[in-house]
Order: sequence, then C-alpha cells, then structure tokens
Amino acid sequence: MKQYLKIDEWSIIEESFDPQTQEISESVFSIGNGYMGGRANFEEQYSGNSLQGSYMAGVYYPDKTRVGWWKNGYPEYFAKVLNSTNWIGINIDIDGTALDLAKCTVSEFHRELNMKEGTLSRSFTATLADGKEVKVESIRLVSMVRQEIGAIRYSIQPLNFAGTITVTPYLDGDVKNKDSNYDEKFWNEVEKKGLPDGGYLTLKTKKLDFHVTSAMAFDIFKGDELLSIEAEAVEQDKYVASVITLPVQSGDQIVLYKYVANVTSRNHGLGQLIDAATTALQSAKEAGFATLLTEQSEAWRDKWKESDIVIEGDVSAQQAIRFNIFQLNQTYNGEDDRLNIGPKGFTGEKYGGSTYWDTEAYCVPFYLSTADSTIARNLLIYRYKHLEKAKENARKLGFTKGALYPMVTMNGEECHNEWEITFEEIHRNGAIAYAVYNYVNYTGDKAYLGQYGLEVLVEISRFWEERVHLVPHKDKYVMLGVTGPNEYENNVNNNWYTNRMASWTLEYTLEALAYLQENEASRYAELADKLELLESETEKWAEIIAKMYYPADEERGIFLQQDGFLDKDLMLVKDIPQENLPLNQKWSWDRILRSCFIKQADVLQGLFFLGDRYDLETKKRNFDFYEPLTVHESSLSPCIHAILACELGYMEKAYEMYLRTSRLDLDNYNNDTEDGCHSTSMAGTWMSIVHGFGGFRVLDGRVVLKPSNPGHWTSYAFKIMFRGSRLKVNVTDLEVTVTNETEVPASITIYDQEYTVNGLSSITAQGSSITV
Amino acid sequence: MKQYLKIDEWSIIEESFDPQTQEISESVFSIGNGYMGGRANFEEQYSGNSLQGSYMAGVYYPDKTRVGWWKNGYPEYFAKVLNSTNWIGINIDIDGTALDLAKCTVSEFHRELNMKEGTLSRSFTATLADGKEVKVESIRLVSMVRQEIGAIRYSIQPLNFAGTITVTPYLDGDVKNKDSNYDEKFWNEVEKKGLPDGGYLTLKTKKLDFHVTSAMAFDIFKGDELLSIEAEAVEQDKYVASVITLPVQSGDQIVLYKYVANVTSRNHGLGQLIDAATTALQSAKEAGFATLLTEQSEAWRDKWKESDIVIEGDVSAQQAIRFNIFQLNQTYNGEDDRLNIGPKGFTGEKYGGSTYWDTEAYCVPFYLSTADSTIARNLLIYRYKHLEKAKENARKLGFTKGALYPMVTMNGEECHNEWEITFEEIHRNGAIAYAVYNYVNYTGDKAYLGQYGLEVLVEISRFWEERVHLVPHKDKYVMLGVTGPNEYENNVNNNWYTNRMASWTLEYTLEALAYLQENEASRYAELADKLELLESETEKWAEIIAKMYYPADEERGIFLQQDGFLDKDLMLVKDIPQENLPLNQKWSWDRILRSCFIKQADVLQGLFFLGDRYDLETKKRNFDFYEPLTVHESSLSPCIHAILACELGYMEKAYEMYLRTSRLDLDNYNNDTEDGCHSTSMAGTWMSIVHGFGGFRVLDGRVVLKPSNPGHWTSYAFKIMFRGSRLKVNVTDLEVTVTNETEVPASITIYDQEYTVNGLSSITAQGSSITV
Repeated sequence: MKQYLKIDEWSIIEESFDPQTQEISESVFSIGNGYMGGRANFEEQYSGNSLQGSYMAGVYYPDKTRVGWWKNGYPEYFAKVLNSTNWIGINIDIDGTALDLAKCTVSEFHRELNMKEGTLSRSFTATLADGKEVKVESIRLVSMVRQEIGAIRYSIQPLNFAGTITVTPYLDGDVKNKDSNYDEKFWNEVEKKGLPDGGYLTLKTKKLDFHVTSAMAFDIFKGDELLSIEAEAVEQDKYVASVITLPVQSGDQIVLYKYVANVTSRNHGLGQLIDAATTALQSAKEAGFATLLTEQSEAWRDKWKESDIVIEGDVSAQQAIRFNIFQLNQTYNGEDDRLNIGPKGFTGEKYGGSTYWDTEAYCVPFYLSTADSTIARNLLIYRYKHLEKAKENARKLGFTKGALYPMVTMNGEECHNEWEITFEEIHRNGAIAYAVYNYVNYTGDKAYLGQYGLEVLVEISRFWEERVHLVPHKDKYVMLGVTGPNEYENNVNNNWYTNRMASWTLEYTLEALAYLQENEASRYAELADKLELLESETEKWAEIIAKMYYPADEERGIFLQQDGFLDKDLMLVKDIPQENLPLNQKWSWDRILRSCFIKQADVLQGLFFLGDRYDLETKKRNFDFYEPLTVHESSLSPCIHAILACELGYMEKAYEMYLRTSRLDLDNYNNDTEDGCHSTSMAGTWMSIVHGFGGFRVLDGRVVLKPSNPGHWTSYAFKIMFRGSRLKVNVTDLEVTVTNETEVPASITIYDQEYTVNGLSSITAQGSSITV
Repeated sequence: MKQYLKIDEWSIIEESFDPQTQEISESVFSIGNGYMGGRANFEEQYSGNSLQGSYMAGVYYPDKTRVGWWKNGYPEYFAKVLNSTNWIGINIDIDGTALDLAKCTVSEFHRELNMKEGTLSRSFTATLADGKEVKVESIRLVSMVRQEIGAIRYSIQPLNFAGTITVTPYLDGDVKNKDSNYDEKFWNEVEKKGLPDGGYLTLKTKKLDFHVTSAMAFDIFKGDELLSIEAEAVEQDKYVASVITLPVQSGDQIVLYKYVANVTSRNHGLGQLIDAATTALQSAKEAGFATLLTEQSEAWRDKWKESDIVIEGDVSAQQAIRFNIFQLNQTYNGEDDRLNIGPKGFTGEKYGGSTYWDTEAYCVPFYLSTADSTIARNLLIYRYKHLEKAKENARKLGFTKGALYPMVTMNGEECHNEWEITFEEIHRNGAIAYAVYNYVNYTGDKAYLGQYGLEVLVEISRFWEERVHLVPHKDKYVMLGVTGPNEYENNVNNNWYTNRMASWTLEYTLEALAYLQENEASRYAELADKLELLESETEKWAEIIAKMYYPADEERGIFLQQDGFLDKDLMLVKDIPQENLPLNQKWSWDRILRSCFIKQADVLQGLFFLGDRYDLETKKRNFDFYEPLTVHESSLSPCIHAILACELGYMEKAYEMYLRTSRLDLDNYNNDTEDGCHSTSMAGTWMSIVHGFGGFRVLDGRVVLKPSNPGHWTSYAFKIMFRGSRLKVNVTDLEVTVTNETEVPASITIYDQEYTVNGLSSITAQGSSITV
C-alpha cells in the first residue's frame, strides 16, 4: 500500500508525475457514463508502462478458452470486456519530436478527477530533451447527458521557443486486450474516412459482429481565435487522424477541442451507424464544450442529490466514500436492462465478463437506495432475460430441470472455467433469488413476482431440489460438493450458507406462490401452466425445507461453515506472520484450502442476508468465532463484517473494516489497482455506512434505522430513496435527524421508536446506540 | 471399441488398410528399445491423418504452462516428451507422383508387429491414380542390442510399368509436438550435412540444450545387385536427404537398406556427437541388415525367456498378455537410471512427463519379477536422485521439512498444474516409500536401506508428519484436503488410503531405522548425522502411528474412502444407464465428484499393498462394498480388482477385470489408443495374471503361490525371477508345476504347503484353490 493521492473532499488529486504509479492512476482516475468509459490514459503519446483501455458497455468478445486440462461442461469461450477504439488520442509533435512524458522532464504536474462535476483534468509543464518547454492543460469528460459523446479540451503553450507544433487528433482501432488468451486482436475494420475536419472509423468484432463507429470532429484555437486551418487527413489500418501543423511563437496558446461520438450496433442498425454518430457528434459540437461541461456538472449535481454521503471530521473517509459512489454511478446507470456491472467497470479488463453475484449481493442494495427503483428492477430483469440460458446451463451439467445461473456471464452463458467455481459455487443462485426478495421487500412492488420474479424463483427452486439428496440414515437432505462464498474452500459438503440459502429460496418461492394464488389467481394459473408446476414439486420443497441439514456445533452454539470444519487446525489471523500475507500470494492453494482461514464472509453472509431470522446472540457467537479466522482477501468481505460489527456494537472492528473497504483502490490496498478498480465492492463500501453505521433495514414496509457512530467522525449523513420519498439521515454523536427531501411522507423506526416523517420536514431522535 | 486386429499368439496383425484406424495402428505397432522409439508411421509420405512421432528417452522440453487461472506454487513449465527427428522417412516418387497411401488404391495390405523377434513389417500393393501398380515391403527395427541404431529394409517393385522411381531416404528435424501448448516448435538446427551416401543432422532443443545427432547411411539394390549410384544430396532447414533416381522395368525389385544412428548429448559430449553417430552407424552398416535382424531376434528370445506368459486355450488372451509384456520391455530396459517409464512410452505424447506413481505401484513389481533386480533398483535410485528436488518441492508448498515427490516429472521437478492433483494427490509419496519396501522384501537386499532407501523414507516421513495435525477433541491425527488414487474425488478429508499409507510409511521408516541401528551402526550414525535426525521426530512418528485417524463404518465393517463417504447418494455402477458411460466423457466434473462412483481402486489399493495386514473377511467386506461402485475409468484400476477378486475366489469378476486390462489398447477399449498406448498400466495386466491368478506374493523371503484358474484357459504359465532363481509356474485345472530354470534353489509355498525347488528341477502341487 502506497498512498500518493491528495486527500480532498470532492476530488482525487495527483500532484506529481511518477511513471511507477501511472497504471494505478489510469485505473483510479477512470471516467465513464454507464454506456462507455475508459482508463485515464494520456491523450498524447506515452511510451511508459500503460494499459490503454476504452470500453463500450455490452460489447464483448468470446475469447477462446485457455485451460490446462479440459473438464466436461466447460464453456468453449471466455467472454472478455473488449478494449475498443482509442478515441481520446491527440498526438503532439514539437519541431519533429513527439511529446511523450516518458521522455521529458515533467514539472507542475496536476491530475484531478473532479467527482462533483464529472471531469478528468490534467496540467503539466514538460521540458523536452532539447530544452524546449511546453505547458499543457487538458480536461475531458464522458457525457452523462449525451451517452455517446466524449469531449476533450487540450491546450498547449510553448514557453521558451518559436517553432512548429503539430497536433494530431486521431481514432485508433488497432487495439488489443492485454488479457487476450492467445494474443489475438479482436477487431476487423469495416469502413473509415479521414477528413480535413475529423473522420470516422467503423470496426466490427471478429466474432459476434458487434459494430462500433467512432466519429470525431474538432475546433482549434490560437488564443481566442478559431483557426480555419485545413488539417491533413491520414488513413491507416483501423486508424484515422487529422494532422494540424501550426507555426507558434513562445507564449501562444493552442487549444484543441476534440468531440467524439461512439455508437454501437447494440443501439443502432448497421446501416445507421455513421449517420447516428455524425448526428450526435454535430449536435455536441454545436452545443460546444462549455455547454457539455455545464450539462455534466448539472447531471452530477442530480446524482449527488440522490446518493451523496457526507462525513464531517474525516476528509479521508469523505473522499473515499464519494470515490466509491462516483465510480458506481459511472459504471452503471440502469438505463439499459441488457447491461450489468462488471467487476472492474470501465477501469480495466481483468476478470472478463460483466456479471457476477456481486450484482445481486452488493450492487442491488446500493441502487435500491440511491436511485429510482427501475434501476434495481432492470438488474433483476437482466437475470429474468437469461432464465432460458440458465436452464440450458443446468441441463449441460446434467440436471433434468431447474436453472443454474452462470458464475460469470455476458449474455447468460457461463464464461468461467475453473470447475470448483463454475460448477460448484452454486450459491450464486441463492443470491439471485434473494435479490428478488430484496427488491420486493424494499419497494413493495409485489406485482414484480407475477411479472418476472416467480419464474426465476421456481426454476432456482427446482435446481435446489435436484441438487440435494436425502441421506436415509440421517433423514436429512444434504448438498455435497460445493464451493461457498469463502472460495478458500473448494468442493466441500454442506456449506451452511449454501444449504441455508437453498432452503430459504424454497421457502420464499412457496410464499410467493401462495401470495400469487391468493392475490393474482389468474396470473398464478397462467404461470403454473407455463411452468408446468406440479403439486409434487411444492410438496417436495416443503419436505426439503423441513429436513435440510445444517451443520452446527452445539457446544459453541455456532453454525459450521461446512462439514468437518472443526477438524481444521484452528488458528487466528492475528497469529499469521505478516510475511505470509496475503495468503493468496504467499501460500500454495492446498495450504490455503486445508487451513481454517476464510477469504470472505460465508456463514456471516447468511446471517446478514437473513438477519431478521437470527437473534443477536446467535450472530454474536458466529461473528466471534468466524471473524478472527477471516483474512478478507476478497474485496467483498470487509463490508459484511462491518455491518455485523455495527449490529453487535463492535465499533472499533466496524471502523477497521470500513477503512479496509473504502480506500481499497485509492490506497492500492491489495496491490492490484493497476488492473482496474474493484467496482462492485464499492457498493459494499456504501453498504457498510448505510446498513452498517446507519443500521438501515427495511422491515414490514418501514425504514428501520439504528445509527451508531464509529467515534472518528463529527457527523455523517446519507440519503435513502424509499418508495417515493428521499430521506436524508444525519447522525451526530448526540442525535439522528431524518429529513424528508420529498413531499412523500415516510414511516420510519429509529431505535425501535416509530416516526412518520412528513414531506419536506425533519424529525430528530436521540438514541442509546450512539457511540461517542 | 472396434476390434480390427487379427488374433495371433506372437504377432499383432492388420490385414487391410483403413485410414480410420491408421492413428490407432500407429500407436499399437510402435517399436522401441528403451533408449528410443516411435510410432508405426509409414516410411513413405502419408497425407492422411497421422501422428508422426519419434522419441528419444530423456530428451524433453519444458513447454510453457497453459492454465486458465494461476495458482501459487504451480510450475512455470510443463515437461513434454519431445518429438524429435523423423529418421524413418523414405519418400518414393514414381514418374513424378509421390507414393502416398492416402491417394492410392491399396490392396494386399499387411502390417505386422512381430513380438517374438522385435520387428515391424508391412507390405502392400498400391495402384496409383494413373494405374501404375507397385508392390512394397518394408521391415524395420529399433535395435535392442545397439541402442542407438534403427534400420529399415524397404523394397519397391513396379508391377505393370517401366519408368523412373525416385527413392529419398531423409532425416527431418522440422517436427513439432502435437501437444505443444502454444504451437511452438522446440528444435533449432546446429549442424547438418547431406552426402551422396547419407548425411547427418544435429539439432538442439530451444531450452535445456539437449542435442540430438541423427546420421544415416544406405545401400540400394536392384534385385541382388548392389547399385553404386551416387545420390543427390539435399539440404534444407533441419532436413537432409539423399535423392536416388532409378530407371526401372516392370518386375524389378528395388531394395533400400536405411541405417540410422541417433545419439544424444545425454550420452556423449557435444563435440563427440557426430563421431559417435558415425561410428555406430558404420558398425551397423558393416554388420548388415541380416545381422541386425538376428541380433534382434536373439535379444528378444532372451527377454521372453525371462518374462513370457503362456496361456493355452485362449489365443486372444495369449496375444494380449504378450503385447503388454512386449511394450513394457520396449519402453524401459533399466539400463539408464536417469530414465523412467512414461505413461505412453514411445507410442505417443499425451500426458507429458515421464514419471508417475504408476512406476512404483505397477511397474516395479513387473521388473522385479521379470528382470535382473538392478532394473527395479535403478527405478528406485531414480527417485533417490530426485530427493533434493522433492525437498524443494515441499518447501515451495510451504513445508518446513520433508520431501514431496512430484506427481509428474522428468527431472524431479513437478510439471503438472491442476491443484487437485499437483498439490493434493500426495499419496504418491506413499507409493514411493512402498516401492522401497517392495524391493527390499522381494530381493532381500537390505543393504539398499543404508545405501539409498532410508534417506527417502525419512524425508517422506517428515512430510507426513507435517501434513497431518492433531484434532484435540478427537485426539486423532487427521489429514485434510487430499486427493486419493480415486481421482473422482478431490480435496477430501481423511482419505483412508492416504492416511493408511502415511502411517505405514512411518512404521516402515521406524523399522528400517531400527534395522540399521542394529545391523549397520556406523552407517546409521552417519545417516542420522546427515539427515539431522532428532529423537523428537521418531517419537512424533510413533505418536502419529498410534493416533492416526482411519475413517470407517462399524456397521458395514468397512473402511471409508474418506470422511462423509456414506452421505453420498449410494448407487451401483450396474444401474448407470449405458449412455452415461464413460462418466468422464458424459458427466460434468461436479456430478462425478459428488457421486459415489469410483474411478479406480482406492481403499482396495491399500488392501492390496498391505494385504498381509488384513484378513480375508475385511477384504471381502470392502471389496463387496466398493467394487460395485467402481467404474474403472483409469487403466490402472481393473488389475487391482482382478488381484483381489482372485484372492477372494471371485473368479468371474477376476476374469472380467483381466479382459478389461489386457486388451485395452488392442481393442481400443477407452477409445483413445490413437493418442498412444497405456504403457504403465500394461504392468498391471501382468500383475493381474501373476499376482492375481497366480496368487504370487513374497512373504518372509519366500515365494508364495496360490494359483487359481479363471476357468477359460486350459493352462497358463508365467516366470518369476526371484533372488537368483528363475521359476516357471505352470497352472492347469488340476495342478501347479513350478520348474526352476536356474541352478539356484528356491523356497516356495504353494497353497500353504512349503517346498524347495532345486536347481533345474520341478515340483508339482495339487491345490484346493484351483477352479475349473
């Protein structure tokens, strides 16, 4: 861990140029708008270490699988988030020498991700090998308002010479994925045109035929004067550029405004791509850069209104939580129900695929509380649309019925190929069922069950039914050969979490069926028919619920993570020599597997999900047993521990966990931020404040709050959108104030006291749980 | 399974040409001499499907590992058996058209592997597209006497035309491995010379710098007339050839004798390679082809004298067992203690690496009984020489002491990379310790312990010591996270076999230490010093022996393959629908893992190894439980079941298992013979007769026999070499005759009756176990 970024409430700031941290910064300073995005690569040429990355949501590539030993049932292809046309490029040439920060002396370097306004800016002075000095300033955005538009203002000023500066804005589609399995390139050129005032480039993927057209236009100024110089158009393989050559005097300021539209065949017909790009481009150019900036700033103001968390008295924590919220809002906006939230968003390529159970377990709660409910609903419908693929997936693995959702997917098909994950980490099915419950419980939108939810629940229940079997001599249903959320165990028997979520799914499915039967009889009949639902099935589910086996240790009063867990050599994380950490980099896999150390919340994940079914004492015994065994080597772990720690009043532990999750990328905690940010776990950071310190739950249609203060903050405040109202919850050491920012009244419970917060008004509560 | 080979006592015969079975035949008809060998590729060009393969023992390549997801501790490289210079090639051109069986009409095709004399021959008549007919006869050998020499007699006779035939013997080093991970070629050229009368070619591997020089010479005859035509020398990249153009009349017989020497830097200095090759080549050519054939025939006569098994009344079984013995003797001759027995010998590339636990568990018994004891001893010393690497391997996996031998290796380093195998299938260590016991018990060579054996035993014991841990509430030592011999279970706890072999290792190590202390005190002191052996260690081993945990089911009176085995959904193999078999091709891995079905002997392997420690009733209960669950999808499985079935008097089962193992490759039972033969499991076939039907054991320095007859054979006879004597055991339905073919008397027990068989005499026993 090396902290080199400046602490600031609203911005991420880097104040000097260091090639060693360039790739980390490229990740951290990434910008995107849910539709497209990319890493904070430099506009001008850079020959140092860099991961050039521009990504279009939903445009992926089924790269040929690479495995050592093939297992029956593995997917042939592994979907890759696809690096696409580099549209930010602006090469600078000074009297025949390329401006390249790897070959200059750089001073006064400043890079800033302005999270309040949604811009990435950079300025520096560079001294070339021949002594020529230039000052450069750039600012760029990916528009939150015009999703296909990106724009850059790039200025360059010779400080100590007169000569010729060549400015070359370009579009370069000759890119490759760093994580390509066999070093293949994935794009073919379809069409291109280099023009004196811009150009366009259409590429298509070698498989799946995704087309992406990028079109660029520009204005160039010297000082305030718009120049009418005709650029030289250049066309090369998968590349177009406009070369603008300018005589300059010392002190002149050359400013290039580059506008780009990136459109894809996901949203436009193949014949319309160039038109669509040109139209969007022209409109943006006519609006002008200043207008784009204003639009951007206003769009982010609205986003922050819904989702900001304010922490007083701890700027570092304030910056961290805003960074997490900012990245989440950049990654997914819920407008396109074919999209989902990739583990690295638009900040890198690693992990491929777009969708993990992270979405249901971590991201859905964030979007439920910070955005219109249609956004979380779209995340659910994404899975509904993949139901047929999930059924196919179950058939491939030998199941005669039911659905097994993939561990990693782009289009509903599995695209991961480690048997212990792909075939065995089936608890993901439970999280997908849970998200249906979570959404309905949060929004009260029970109609969703009849519309979409029930079909998913029934097919998942059928999978669980076939995946368990009765052990006659125990008269219990068991589930063998699974991997739980704690991936530091593989192929275990009776993972408590998986068994519990399986029987919970059956319970909720029966409950949903009963609800529908009672309240939407005709829809129920229709669905029962469509699903060919048998009474023998629901009877079987009830039997499984009654006879599910849950490993437990009576003496300790804990649930066992899996059969035989107590046969392990029980040690504590605090006793692991520091040089052995992180285990996943220092220990061989077998040693990790047989050790008692836990990667991420497993039993505790279940106690969080089903928190209203377990008493505090049960949670405490399990937390006290499992927390000291947990190494938190998944970015998804600390937040769940933080939430439970808050519930149990372990405030020091909660704060420790909060720090671990919130500044993970800013401080490069796991030494891997150069690969991209941990986008989905950022939702966990949000959860650790709102569900953790805020103690926020939704029970029986009410907002329930049990806020506590970690003791390091003067106050903190978060927003909750709930059934039409937006509540701002402000917690100080002394009191909790809930302000209703809308006109829709809300029923809430604070420390077991019930309140109604009327429209545009506040209530204040003093509470016993507040820790100073 | 498709049987297309003719049944014959001494030969494998193919009587028609079928491109569909060409690759299977290339495997089955392979020839080798322990030093080199290759597949039965055609000499002349062949454009149909073919796996061209020539292999030099011990010349391998560390190919770059390919995995989907890297695990800490995986080896960087995966060793490949290296396809090397194709030295058999003789291209034939007839008036400008290449002779290519894929493009001719082929009649009177006959291919024969003469196992009695060690030759591969082929004859056919080919009609070319233009109607020209030629008759071709070839015979080739890889000399058992001159290990570096291969030779071919190739004759061609125009049947219906006069014209020009061009005969081109060549050496082609521009070859690649079919199983190359990234399609790379592995050889660079060092030196070559094409000469009018032959040529040579030196290549070296791109890594590890193995050099191989191949040199060729030839004589060409028309009828009986040695022609003195000067050939045209051709040199190309990694290729030399001699082009001989001959005018021919219909009925002329052109005969080419091609002699090749292949020498390697494993046996010669780099500067001596060409000299060595030339010298060996000249000597072979001067001896002449007829002499080479005679030498070969005599060498094989001696081999058969030691190792033949004769079965009367079942030619198919006779052919099968000879094929297995023949292939084993071709694969390994024990002369080079740096070599071992690859799973495919010289018959293919699959599986890479040369050494698996197959060597200790299956091959050592074969070589102990059929060859001089130095051969088995060399197999043991091979592991002794790898002890330091095995210690390094244990360190890499985090052990502070002891040795873990690799699962797959060429040079002592691990070269496999599936964690569930590489890191967890640690029972291999037990088999390596067991081989020491087996060798000493068989030969009586207790001096081996002090010389080599004890060091291996102590380091393996240290590994076991660190790999188990005490579970306080059970007061038992457990071993978690292993894969047993049954690879259809991964990462299980307390695999009975592994636990048992671990504590057995500790017992035998303590026994060996005590023996040495008592009988070779100074060597003991020396070794104790070298090994830094502590009293606390041996005390710990005794404690582990006393408190080792063995999973068992009291009710059934069986050992449990692993913890929780009885929680599985218990079904029988006979109830698996035929279309689901083989499971490894039809079921996904998770389904296989959680099923009760067993790939290969696991508990039963232990009951075979430690057979003298368990009573028949125990064996029976376990066999009756586990056999019906076993799918035998490892070639190593049926033989162990056959042996135990014989012991238990289950003769039908034993015969079924024998058939399954013995004709595995001849009848392409597993539909994979085209990849190469299952060389190591061939030793298991031998075991199923000698240890199975013959009931052969060595107890207290005596040969113990309990022969039985599967009821399908008139009689069968096998040889046992034992402590200087060679015994021929002949079993009929009525009696057992043991003939001592040497002058060294032998003490034997037949059906619990003790006998002494004096030199060059016989004894006959009637016995109750004989089944008609």
